[in-house]
Amino acid sequence: MFDLKKYIAEKRAKIEEFIKSYFNPAIVPPILHESVLYSLTAGGKRLRPILCISAYEACGGKEDITAYATAIEFIHTYSLIHDDLPAMDNDDLRRGKPTNHKIFGEAIAILAGDGLLTEAFRILSNPAYTDVEPLNLIKVIHELSSSAGVYGMVGGQAMDLISERKEPDKESVEFIHLNKTAKLISASVKSGAILASADDEQMKKIETYGLSIGLAFQIIDDILDIEGSTEEIGKPKGSDIEKGKMTYPRVYGITQSRKKAKQLIDEALNALETFDEKAEPLREIAKYIIKRTS
Amino acid sequence: MFDLKKYIAEKRAKIEEFIKSYFNPAIVPPILHESVLYSLTAGGKRLRPILCISAYEACGGKEDITAYATAIEFIHTYSLIHDDLPAMDNDDLRRGKPTNHKIFGEAIAILAGDGLLTEAFRILSNPAYTDVEPLNLIKVIHELSSSAGVYGMVGGQAMDLISERKEPDKESVEFIHLNKTAKLISASVKSGAILASADDEQMKKIETYGLSIGLAFQIIDDILDIEGSTEEIGKPKGSDIEKGKMTYPRVYGITQSRKKAKQLIDEALNALETFDEKAEPLREIAKYIIKRTS
Repeated sequence: MFDLKKYIAEKRAKIEEFIKSYFNPAIVPPILHESVLYSLTAGGKRLRPILCISAYEACGGKEDITAYATAIEFIHTYSLIHDDLPAMDNDDLRRGKPTNHKIFGEAIAILAGDGLLTEAFRILSNPAYTDVEPLNLIKVIHELSSSAGVYGMVGGQAMDLISERKEPDKESVEFIHLNKTAKLISASVKSGAILASADDEQMKKIETYGLSIGLAFQIIDDILDIEGSTEEIGKPKGSDIEKGKMTYPRVYGITQSRKKAKQLIDEALNALETFDEKAEPLREIAKYIIKRTS
Repeated sequence: MFDLKKYIAEKRAKIEEFIKSYFNPAIVPPILHESVLYSLTAGGKRLRPILCISAYEACGGKEDITAYATAIEFIHTYSLIHDDLPAMDNDDLRRGKPTNHKIFGEAIAILAGDGLLTEAFRILSNPAYTDVEPLNLIKVIHELSSSAGVYGMVGGQAMDLISERKEPDKESVEFIHLNKTAKLISASVKSGAILASADDEQMKKIETYGLSIGLAFQIIDDILDIEGSTEEIGKPKGSDIEKGKMTYPRVYGITQSRKKAKQLIDEALNALETFDEKAEPLREIAKYIIKRTS
């Protein structure tokens, strides 16, 4: 039987190893080096890079694409560092630890984010890491930048900020969830499929899977802010409510939100129906997302 | 005779046109859309994209690469928006206009910078803009991200900040000038050469040209902060001194600095010796850099 815990632990170990090998402290100003490593190794779940690798394997990929997958974690980490800034969500805690700017100051935190985003594309544009088709790397860069820029995550975060303390409405919360969270998660799995040279049909199914689990992930996040324990979520519970964030439960209530998340996970699993046992990790990750408590 | 003013005006017009056509206000939150356009159209010289196009033409390129060149302006503009932030250089004026965060607030300014950096890579990973070799785009992305990330501009800016109010020393000022300014300028010309499939010999000369004018550009910038007029430089004169910045004149004095800049421009011109008349724009831009007053 497939063991998700073991699978994740193995992938994670490789991701951590790549992170440690990537930066050269001799030619990066020491405080910047410490700052990027602090956030990169602050105990993230590595969901996005693992999804990328799992999708790659589900589509028949056989190489070790850890470097490219980890670039996605760089993008995710940059977004967390910037989101936590005083001018943005002004959070002091992330994963139970002080946020980057609390340790290194705002200037270095901004630069650490900028640096991580840029290094992600530096990694993705280096075909030397493993034996993949270089033209697929261009497609991956286009997919990830489209999902992370003003037409994706950055646009979603802007809408999230300007929607604070406004009357909740369906259109806004859906825009925020789709752009701020789901698109990058979807792009993570799509990147894996692209690197495996998946055909159009596989790609479409992988995209449905990715968007569905991405939206479900954010709905569960919203629910955990209300029902989770501060210890498990690693930051003060209720902080969305305190900030007047436009969340799914605020628009639909908890019961409806939970139902919607369940339905999305079912859609994700259905999308994988024609995939063989190599898609088992993707299936188990989808099931984990609905059960997660942190 | 080659007319630099006319040449620059023509290239600039195309760059502005691309900028205006790029963003779709229907799917970007309006304040974010306004914020990125505000800084992109705030009267920049367009030095980096023009250098990219000029190097491309000098190496025999015949297509219209405005889109890819403008992506470099996106990277440059993001760096200015973030550098001006209160946590960084805390500047209120840029090119004679209020800085981005003064108009749109810090949160949107941070996001506008993040968005521009990401969109740059979205443009560069789209082979549909013109008829260039897609594999060359990967090389351009690698070149630009290497020059802009923690091993380039971001590292330079971090060093610039942590060196404020310290005793000036040669090693630090050279690290800052090279990383904060020269590498991206050099990468701009190298990107043009890569897109034109320049051979190794041409590439080496283009790189020497780029690093030399890049360093000269920053030295002249330092001198203008002391000797220029506030009206021409578009921000209060003497602001480097006020902030205790590690500048070239502080280490070497004005006379030596001017001499060094002149010497660098001569090196740049020498590097182009074997290039034909198609390199005239690159030559004239080098001469302009030493004479500029803004």
